[in-house]
Amino acid sequence: MFIDLKTAIKRLSEKDNIVILLHQFPDGDTIGCGYSLYFALKKLGKTARVECCDKIGDRYSYITENVIFEDFEPEFVVAVDVALLGSKSDEYKQIDLCIDHHGSNCGYATETYVDASAAAACEIIYEVVKELNGEVDLNGATALYTGISTDTGCFKFTNTTAKTHRIAADLMDLGANFGEINRIMFETNSKARIEVETKALNTLKYACDGKVAIMTITKEMRKTSGAEDSELEGITSLPRTIEGVVLGLTIRERDNVNICKVSARSHAPIDASEFCSNFGGGGHARAGGCEIAAPVEETFEKLVEVAEKMLKEAGLY
Amino acid sequence: MFIDLKTAIKRLSEKDNIVILLHQFPDGDTIGCGYSLYFALKKLGKTARVECCDKIGDRYSYITENVIFEDFEPEFVVAVDVALLGSKSDEYKQIDLCIDHHGSNCGYATETYVDASAAAACEIIYEVVKELNGEVDLNGATALYTGISTDTGCFKFTNTTAKTHRIAADLMDLGANFGEINRIMFETNSKARIEVETKALNTLKYACDGKVAIMTITKEMRKTSGAEDSELEGITSLPRTIEGVVLGLTIRERDNVNICKVSARSHAPIDASEFCSNFGGGGHARAGGCEIAAPVEETFEKLVEVAEKMLKEAGLY
Repeated sequence: MFIDLKTAIKRLSEKDNIVILLHQFPDGDTIGCGYSLYFALKKLGKTARVECCDKIGDRYSYITENVIFEDFEPEFVVAVDVALLGSKSDEYKQIDLCIDHHGSNCGYATETYVDASAAAACEIIYEVVKELNGEVDLNGATALYTGISTDTGCFKFTNTTAKTHRIAADLMDLGANFGEINRIMFETNSKARIEVETKALNTLKYACDGKVAIMTITKEMRKTSGAEDSELEGITSLPRTIEGVVLGLTIRERDNVNICKVSARSHAPIDASEFCSNFGGGGHARAGGCEIAAPVEETFEKLVEVAEKMLKEAGLY
Repeated sequence: MFIDLKTAIKRLSEKDNIVILLHQFPDGDTIGCGYSLYFALKKLGKTARVECCDKIGDRYSYITENVIFEDFEPEFVVAVDVALLGSKSDEYKQIDLCIDHHGSNCGYATETYVDASAAAACEIIYEVVKELNGEVDLNGATALYTGISTDTGCFKFTNTTAKTHRIAADLMDLGANFGEINRIMFETNSKARIEVETKALNTLKYACDGKVAIMTITKEMRKTSGAEDSELEGITSLPRTIEGVVLGLTIRERDNVNICKVSARSHAPIDASEFCSNFGGGGHARAGGCEIAAPVEETFEKLVEVAEKMLKEAGLY
């Protein structure tokens, strides 16, 4: 059942022994939600803990350090920023409450509050914490700022709203160390990431008079650098940042080198999802993906062929 | 004479035939100030124009297009975001008014208003335009958002304040197309820039157990790519973004290949300015520069030698 925010807050204030569930591959938003809510519940004298099926990245340690969770029998389970329950969440058969900002949330929980206009779920949890505690403390502000900043690409993405900025302002007034948070989140690359990025950039090729840019990340690059998938986050958006490029493609060679994963990023009027549908994939207008059962070179040729056709149809080539 | 904002606004409302002067190598902030002020003065029925000794970059065309300045005899000259008058500004012997946010502004104008707490001069001009016109229109909001976003690295730099966010929120409410502005300012690289970045990354070397990263941009790279200096903006901050690096150095080979320009970026406790002072340069704690009269390889060795010494003294190596 979908409920309003007031009811969601009422549930949290009434219940105790609360498990806060994050989504798998936890990002800044779900971590920010989970920990700020945890801090708020503790302040009310409640027993609570944060759980996630995947490990929280070390770079979030400024939020998670010094937190030691007690062991207790859960009586109430709340999922934050979780649009879909992953298979690993089987431990909790019943989710009592879900607070989320994904419009696609199907309402898997007993009670669900969704505000799809929120750029980050942390915007909603900010209201929750204010209501529960009467104020947001420094730890809460730090966690919430992290979620808002990361989910909006530091206020760059089009999901950002005027409200997002006003909440960020409030969190800065409360002392959130935004400079350090943004340095860690946006200005820090691992050595492995830089190695892969360098090698991938060396493979960069243009097609269709420079309107299509294609970059390749081979199995070998991943292997020699030791880069984990999480370290390569966002790398696929690179080709589209190049001036004049309307379709940026990244070929990622799989462990089975006869299969390639392709990420497509586009500018209007090119539809990335439509492009990927030619290979059985899909996605959104500006970002799509597909898998091609071919080695890198053959994949490259297939991509260029379809790109040429699409750009011609759009009168761009 | 330093004056308050009320007096500065009074001058602008009283005067006519106003020349608005931008600083040399115009950036988003001075352009945003100049054009939003121009739009506001025109709305009051005044005659005005924007002047700059250097060409305004094409990427700002969404602000400057459709603007045709009239020819007129200037009666009042106002400089916006101009800390120092460059030699090319000799045309105007007397600057009547200066509105700025640089604490270093020495007061070269007849009357000067400085608010060094403003992250961008556009924050001040936002107040000016509101006062002059009673409101900010869409063109003004677009220009002002550009200045605020670019001068704060999209709200990432530590000069950002809660007020900065609140003004950005207001400008978004007024319709500023922030998504497109930020895409142009932060997510667009020229092909030449990508070429130089790729080649420079290929030169990346580490010293002091990975705590120092050194990248080189040769004359040849600049020549074959055709990259202009403006296209390489910010490239020198790359080595410092690498995890574990406390001193990121970029060697830029000059047209005279026996001279290298060095940019140093550091994390605490390493002082970039102190590092550069070893070579007769200087700067700030986190960003410094110097020039070394030696070819690239020799420059590299000299830099590593001093870096090792400094890191040892700091107990980091």
